[in-house]
Amino acid sequence: MIASKHLIEIDDLTNDEIYGVLENAKVFKEINERPIKKLPTLRGKTIINLFLEPSTRTRSSFELAEKRLSADSLNFSASSSATVKGESLLDTAETFDAMKVDMVIARHKYAGYCRILAEHMDAKIVNGGDGIHQHPTQTLLDLFTMQERLGELEGKTVGIIGDIVHSRVAGSLAPALKRLGAHPIFVAPPSYLPAVPEALGAEVSYSLDEVLPELDVVYLLRIQGERANGLSVPSLREYSVLYGMDGRRLRMMKQEALIMHPGPINRGVELTPEVVLDPRMVLLDQVNAGVAVRMAVMYMMLGGEEDGATAA
Amino acid sequence: MIASKHLIEIDDLTNDEIYGVLENAKVFKEINERPIKKLPTLRGKTIINLFLEPSTRTRSSFELAEKRLSADSLNFSASSSATVKGESLLDTAETFDAMKVDMVIARHKYAGYCRILAEHMDAKIVNGGDGIHQHPTQTLLDLFTMQERLGELEGKTVGIIGDIVHSRVAGSLAPALKRLGAHPIFVAPPSYLPAVPEALGAEVSYSLDEVLPELDVVYLLRIQGERANGLSVPSLREYSVLYGMDGRRLRMMKQEALIMHPGPINRGVELTPEVVLDPRMVLLDQVNAGVAVRMAVMYMMLGGEEDGATAA
Amino acid sequence: MIASKHLIEIDDLTNDEIYGVLENAKVFKEINERPIKKLPTLRGKTIINLFLEPSTRTRSSFELAEKRLSADSLNFSASSSATVKGESLLDTAETFDAMKVDMVIARHKYAGYCRILAEHMDAKIVNGGDGIHQHPTQTLLDLFTMQERLGELEGKTVGIIGDIVHSRVAGSLAPALKRLGAHPIFVAPPSYLPAVPEALGAEVSYSLDEVLPELDVVYLLRIQGERANGLSVPSLREYSVLYGMDGRRLRMMKQEALIMHPGPINRGVELTPEVVLDPRMVLLDQVNAGVAVRMAVMYMMLGGEEDGATAA
Repeated sequence: MIASKHLIEIDDLTNDEIYGVLENAKVFKEINERPIKKLPTLRGKTIINLFLEPSTRTRSSFELAEKRLSADSLNFSASSSATVKGESLLDTAETFDAMKVDMVIARHKYAGYCRILAEHMDAKIVNGGDGIHQHPTQTLLDLFTMQERLGELEGKTVGIIGDIVHSRVAGSLAPALKRLGAHPIFVAPPSYLPAVPEALGAEVSYSLDEVLPELDVVYLLRIQGERANGLSVPSLREYSVLYGMDGRRLRMMKQEALIMHPGPINRGVELTPEVVLDPRMVLLDQVNAGVAVRMAVMYMMLGGEEDGATAA
Repeated sequence: MIASKHLIEIDDLTNDEIYGVLENAKVFKEINERPIKKLPTLRGKTIINLFLEPSTRTRSSFELAEKRLSADSLNFSASSSATVKGESLLDTAETFDAMKVDMVIARHKYAGYCRILAEHMDAKIVNGGDGIHQHPTQTLLDLFTMQERLGELEGKTVGIIGDIVHSRVAGSLAPALKRLGAHPIFVAPPSYLPAVPEALGAEVSYSLDEVLPELDVVYLLRIQGERANGLSVPSLREYSVLYGMDGRRLRMMKQEALIMHPGPINRGVELTPEVVLDPRMVLLDQVNAGVAVRMAVMYMMLGGEEDGATAA
Repeated sequence: MIASKHLIEIDDLTNDEIYGVLENAKVFKEINERPIKKLPTLRGKTIINLFLEPSTRTRSSFELAEKRLSADSLNFSASSSATVKGESLLDTAETFDAMKVDMVIARHKYAGYCRILAEHMDAKIVNGGDGIHQHPTQTLLDLFTMQERLGELEGKTVGIIGDIVHSRVAGSLAPALKRLGAHPIFVAPPSYLPAVPEALGAEVSYSLDEVLPELDVVYLLRIQGERANGLSVPSLREYSVLYGMDGRRLRMMKQEALIMHPGPINRGVELTPEVVLDPRMVLLDQVNAGVAVRMAVMYMMLGGEEDGATAA
């Protein structure tokens, strides 16, 4: 099971716990292939999906995970929760606790939102993405996909390409890779890099062409138009010339390397349409792993309680 | 069971399959009358309600059908799916497939949306109404109601009255009636008729008064203010004088004929308030049949799989 | 069980039925503390949450109650039900009946909305708050909290403080307290009082300081900025000086008295932050009781039918 009460940052998990999630997720992935995708594991548990920033993909992935584990789940989207915004964050937290909610999956545009919730709640918090901070279940599904396709994570070189400084995906993935013995490299123009990239455990390169032949994973970040007001590079066109994947760069990659992306993709910016069709592109494996990994996290955080149902 | 993978148009079903749906729906209608309206039939199946055009009635009918069959269902309304709109249709389809969704109920303002989804998805698609194209489950509930109240469909004369060319209801119902041996007649001003009405299997009349005494079913289409910008008749008042049902026309109808409407009704346009109160008006029978017919469709499309639960 | 088909006003319940709800709620409250919070009581029942006025807290309390009792529940929020608004209230009611819905939880800004629904529906209606009229489940959770913390309701003096005339909370609570032998006192400026306060069973005071030392319960109403356009007192600041709870007034209260509030609170208006921290403040007990009381109401209104599942 997982020792930390909450999952706010990837560092809330030990290496062993990360491998435990990946191991359990294998079982859940197999269950998701069955005609009857349902387990009684979280029957009688209450989970709130508190998504105060619009999301389709991540919320539905969590919601499917909850339903397939038989939890009772409630949704609060940005629109339905007009009142939530009027209330203080603390009041919302206390209200859910008083209702005996077991877990809150929270997404918010402010980095640190989940940590504040966690400090004031009895319920367990899973960070579903908080601003530019972290997105730990994305990291777990990314690690799952890498391990499934490449084996052993140790020693693998992973290029994380794009707007690093505004990316919660990079903020979670780089330190996790470093801890597990892989080599993360941020590939971006200086304006897209954090002040101290080493703090996240990553090396830095300004040239995709230079590092591409060495990479085991080419991880393309989404250009976050919604979050970063104004690009820090002259134009989207210049970005895609310097850092976008295209046919020429496909040929520079290792044969067995992977192309990953957290989705949704912007065709013509981070990549050209032919990259989507390349067999090394594993975006849909990532989406598929997402449901399984979230089932594993919920099972390991909630399912092991005194009278919890047995695992799959 | 149903041979076609998807239900996009009513022609995806053979005559035998249509009768099979109506037969199964009888059982589900009876179950919906019970104090405990619940079957384990679709336990462990995942169904997405992807309603990108506002809908209360149809979405809730599908959602009830899903829940009463114990499926896990997720909703995407127009408002929650801001992201869906930003993504390509294809990306959305692939995402749901990667999440191992079994069925998508899709409503969209563009005719053909469901067909495109179907061409790119592993999940089964049920058309919940696509633009002016088709609305096959509406047709099935209409046929159910006619058969329940009038017996045998063969030989019945059904007047379909109103804005035929913009109606997905007419687009599904007319060809189905024709195939089953009934006589559909479009009753509308020329501007409301398709260029080749015969292609949908229907005869044409410009005069409601002329055909009314022969009709076994008076099917009033909703004036689709939302979809048809600008009426093609001089005014709503003129429309209701020429094609609306009122007390005088009630007296011209056969005693045992039915008045049907897909809902919601516009009082004072398609009909006067006294028509709603006439015992031949069966709108609520249609609504009631809607849940049962949708349960039948889902059962026949999903329930018959290898280890699927047994039928009701 | 409950004799009245609907729960629109608190007077739909006899005194014995009110005590029965409180008794059953004790059991459900205990169940909500368990690791597995789930009963099969309402399996196969269909409940619609028809919230046409924004609500987070009340809707989620009902929704949790429904799910923990295994009912099938559907949500209609103000945003999703664009169509509902276009339809007549009567058409909506008839549609839900035709779909064989068992219960509708309705919230609306118009007083009387629930009564009209009830007059036209086969489904049972529970008023989730209708305008300035009543909010009976709030009253039941308030009574539960008072009884749990103070014992016997008979003889207790309850000050209800604030905008009485616009408060559905006061409109339900005062007559209930009166009937059960307690002494409700409205404490407010004349402009916030109903024309005939005695009709609601309450005495009146214009001075909080005067009555405060006698009160067993200090019930602070929320200043309903959304509903009352324009305050009837000169300013929020004046209101809080005259009728807000603060440190000085905390010291004037009985040691064992309670401070209650229907939530969400406006810090600095109805109370100062230190009041929230006072051990006599029981807002979260009220929220906790809310889920249990609503489970009890649903169980007593729906669960006792012919083949209904047995109680907890």
